[in-house]
Amino acid sequence: MKKGLALIVKAGREFGLPTVVEILDPADVPRYEDAGVACFQVGEPNSKNQALLNRLRATPLPVVHKRGNSLDTEAYLLWVERIMTAGKENVILCERGITSPNRYTRNTLDVGSIAAFHYQLSGLPVAVDASHATGIRDLVHPATLAGIMAGASVVLVEAHPNPLIAKSDGHQGLFPEQLRVLVRAAEETWRLRRELDRAYLSSAAIEKEYLARMDADRARYFGRR
Amino acid sequence: MKKGLALIVKAGREFGLPTVVEILDPADVPRYEDAGVACFQVGEPNSKNQALLNRLRATPLPVVHKRGNSLDTEAYLLWVERIMTAGKENVILCERGITSPNRYTRNTLDVGSIAAFHYQLSGLPVAVDASHATGIRDLVHPATLAGIMAGASVVLVEAHPNPLIAKSDGHQGLFPEQLRVLVRAAEETWRLRRELDRAYLSSAAIEKEYLARMDADRARYFGRR
Amino acid sequence: MKKGLALIVKAGREFGLPTVVEILDPADVPRYEDAGVACFQVGEPNSKNQALLNRLRATPLPVVHKRGNSLDTEAYLLWVERIMTAGKENVILCERGITSPNRYTRNTLDVGSIAAFHYQLSGLPVAVDASHATGIRDLVHPATLAGIMAGASVVLVEAHPNPLIAKSDGHQGLFPEQLRVLVRAAEETWRLRRELDRAYLSSAAIEKEYLARMDADRARYFGRR
Amino acid sequence: MKKGLALIVKAGREFGLPTVVEILDPADVPRYEDAGVACFQVGEPNSKNQALLNRLRATPLPVVHKRGNSLDTEAYLLWVERIMTAGKENVILCERGITSPNRYTRNTLDVGSIAAFHYQLSGLPVAVDASHATGIRDLVHPATLAGIMAGASVVLVEAHPNPLIAKSDGHQGLFPEQLRVLVRAAEETWRLRRELDRAYLSSAAIEKEYLARMDADRARYFGRR
Repeated sequence: MKKGLALIVKAGREFGLPTVVEILDPADVPRYEDAGVACFQVGEPNSKNQALLNRLRATPLPVVHKRGNSLDTEAYLLWVERIMTAGKENVILCERGITSPNRYTRNTLDVGSIAAFHYQLSGLPVAVDASHATGIRDLVHPATLAGIMAGASVVLVEAHPNPLIAKSDGHQGLFPEQLRVLVRAAEETWRLRRELDRAYLSSAAIEKEYLARMDADRARYFGRR
Repeated sequence: MKKGLALIVKAGREFGLPTVVEILDPADVPRYEDAGVACFQVGEPNSKNQALLNRLRATPLPVVHKRGNSLDTEAYLLWVERIMTAGKENVILCERGITSPNRYTRNTLDVGSIAAFHYQLSGLPVAVDASHATGIRDLVHPATLAGIMAGASVVLVEAHPNPLIAKSDGHQGLFPEQLRVLVRAAEETWRLRRELDRAYLSSAAIEKEYLARMDADRARYFGRR
Repeated sequence: MKKGLALIVKAGREFGLPTVVEILDPADVPRYEDAGVACFQVGEPNSKNQALLNRLRATPLPVVHKRGNSLDTEAYLLWVERIMTAGKENVILCERGITSPNRYTRNTLDVGSIAAFHYQLSGLPVAVDASHATGIRDLVHPATLAGIMAGASVVLVEAHPNPLIAKSDGHQGLFPEQLRVLVRAAEETWRLRRELDRAYLSSAAIEKEYLARMDADRARYFGRR
Repeated sequence: MKKGLALIVKAGREFGLPTVVEILDPADVPRYEDAGVACFQVGEPNSKNQALLNRLRATPLPVVHKRGNSLDTEAYLLWVERIMTAGKENVILCERGITSPNRYTRNTLDVGSIAAFHYQLSGLPVAVDASHATGIRDLVHPATLAGIMAGASVVLVEAHPNPLIAKSDGHQGLFPEQLRVLVRAAEETWRLRRELDRAYLSSAAIEKEYLARMDADRARYFGRR
């Protein structure tokens, strides 16, 4: 493993790309840190792995914490807090699909929760992983753009030089041509969302005025209390 | 009821807006048609109402058929086909949220299925109803835009002159100011999606080339069969 | 249809069996009543069919109302109340499986809700339909007995002279030999449950004593307030 | 921790009871083994914890592996196999409730899967944990008996000298009086199930005869092929 790690980190540096690794065992944390990886990822199966999350409190590296596929919006944030309780702040939320009556897609991409994370519940960056969420190559493009529009500012996407011969998750891996098109589309979608966000009007900004009007109406009709 | 219907239709005509009514009982179909409504809506609770869907085969009016909240992507399309079996074609699909482990949002907006309807399974227009899908006023804006980006070309949204005093579904109703902002944002998102759709690359368009390359490799290494 | 109905009712009378029919259209109610059927069934797809439920308020016949597969325990009871609001009381609850992450069984039999209906929320009889809940012939027997043990006093089960050639739902239909064994097992399970129910101890019956003890402890240690 | 462990093991030995501990970190396995615990438990949050399951391959102690609340029947068995791949056999399956549209109960007890484990898919013993499955004290009794009737031969149940002041999971903890009644009821239910199991008739035992009859019919009507 050590040798493989070194190769990946070296390749990443050659192309100026950060290296993200999925961490499975708390005991492996220092090994990865020493190897020079740039970021940890907690995979969906370990979303509620207490020992692992506790151990990650102490790493200075950023952590992408994937949402467990059975976790409610807020319950997920409580698991994320487990990493952050001692002061760690560089954590990235990740919506990668939850269970539902759906059979057609592998999971169900929950853009409502992406929106809730970004517009209501959290200040952390939100990633969308439409590859695992849909499990279908041709849906990754539109579902990724939907995730950005809902509030994501990070995109996780699987691609392969030839996904038809990929050892794992080939059905959801993009062809290089598709990746190129998606990257450009994601950039334009991101630009539009940032622009539209300037006009976004939360209820908190206008409710007060309506409440005042209702108070005034009540006073007019029933007299002031 | 007859009088109320006439008033709504009249109001619609005055403002040049089509009138959509939710139909509950097969026996009411001619009554609504005669009153001059422009479009029928099958609500979520009646998504699998056999008698109602059978009856709607014979109406010339368009029908918005909301997806039942427990229906898989393809199972839903089979229920939609029930309306279409005798040749009816003016049907609009509608994703309004399905069940999931989520508690925070009222339902879970399934953009993966919107993408599947539009990019893979159907030629029918797809509506997104983010009001029922999220049940939370402040999430309707981003979730609607996500739905458009995923493949929707129709938007259903609830608004109210003052949702704080609405008789029903007030938590998800937009303030008029929010509706105005959303309409403009939806138009810009729609413009971007139509533009990006021109570059969308389906696997069918490139798989053949990869398969040919794999065949050539096999022939080179193992000899032609 | 009229002729078929008459045949079924006649057959039922010959063997001293009540006739249950699934009702789909509110307009059909009097037709079935006049034909002499003994009981209506509202199928799962119509569990939230407002027009049908409203119409059934007026029938003197008992109604088996199947739970919709996306309905929470209490939400289902609110739909059942729709039939009962004008005073109708002869309604039978029916748990026939809900959606879940399960793929193996057709639906997921929710015995926790059966227990809640019987021991906490309702005085109505509860039916268990393990045929639709599991969709697998060999699981119908144990799942039915589980339903009885959880609180059901009515059993719905599909059988066929030869389920291998059944026109519908053959995978879940019992062979006659299996039906015979299940009926006997259900009777013995029912006998045991009624016996055990005499010893069942609800929290309401003992909580008071524990609360009194806690009050006494508090008084002893901190003085009476 | 070491001191607490020793106390629990000592208490267990005094009363002739085996000690089960929930294991969270692979690194803790030898510590628990050395302390003399009798059995490991993998909790629901760690049902898909790869590093932990891999490590448990090497323990001689039995392992209760709780099913993840988003796992399909068969998908769960694949995770269980992870512990068993090197030859370990003393593993106990455990159904403790899965996600569903239910809000009333904490989870949804899946007796259909218990039946599938016992009657179709596995030779391992199956435990039912109705405390976590329902989360409601008064439903634990009927849901436990339902689990036994469905195929469970092991029962997990939470109790407390006074659950009203329990530090954790008090809503689902039984009062001692309720525990006593449940134990007796479970024994009688178990006795009945073992008796009824002798008459249980699987399709495999009778299908052949029906298939032969169908072949004979075909030959009679259409001639032998």
